[in-house]
Amino acid sequence: MLRHVALLEMKDGTPDSAVAGILTELESLKRTLPAEVKLVNYTFGQDAGLVPSGNAHVAVVADFEDEDGYRAYQSNAEHQAIIKNFIIPHLRKLTTSQFIIKA
Amino acid sequence: MLRHVALLEMKDGTPDSAVAGILTELESLKRTLPAEVKLVNYTFGQDAGLVPSGNAHVAVVADFEDEDGYRAYQSNAEHQAIIKNFIIPHLRKLTTSQFIIKA
Repeated sequence: MLRHVALLEMKDGTPDSAVAGILTELESLKRTLPAEVKLVNYTFGQDAGLVPSGNAHVAVVADFEDEDGYRAYQSNAEHQAIIKNFIIPHLRKLTTSQFIIKA
Repeated sequence: MLRHVALLEMKDGTPDSAVAGILTELESLKRTLPAEVKLVNYTFGQDAGLVPSGNAHVAVVADFEDEDGYRAYQSNAEHQAIIKNFIIPHLRKLTTSQFIIKA
């Protein structure tokens, strides 16, 4: 199984409503991703505020059966639209990684 | 349940052996963390190399029953020793976030 991790650091001054908008879109994306994405699990959330400063603002941890599923996710039109319309306008830094985990 | 995510970007020129050493230490840590850490799941790995450039090198996704467990993990002596002796010497940037997920 392939675990994809994305940490989003937003620009200073990004309104809470913009972060809430991203989370709403990811919730919808989770429900509508096609079978070809081979989604095993999809978790995301706003940072819980446990660290005084320096944390990312939004985290996504998505598990796919394999690399093909991850590739289908990355090229998925709705996913791309969320990145373009909701994330990029407010994004300071995106840090990602994918690693293999035992299911 | 609280999901903690850490993405480690290593300095340029960090030898593969140093990354392998971190992974070995995290494997040992996973087996020896005390009950007070309330560990639900602990996954980590070296980046799978699916993205040509810019990805983090090591990812950790750790799930705890609650915030207290996460705090015990952060202050755990063995965890702190791994950070000090194996990670910091090679670390360029650490990005983290914690978020609530349904178990």
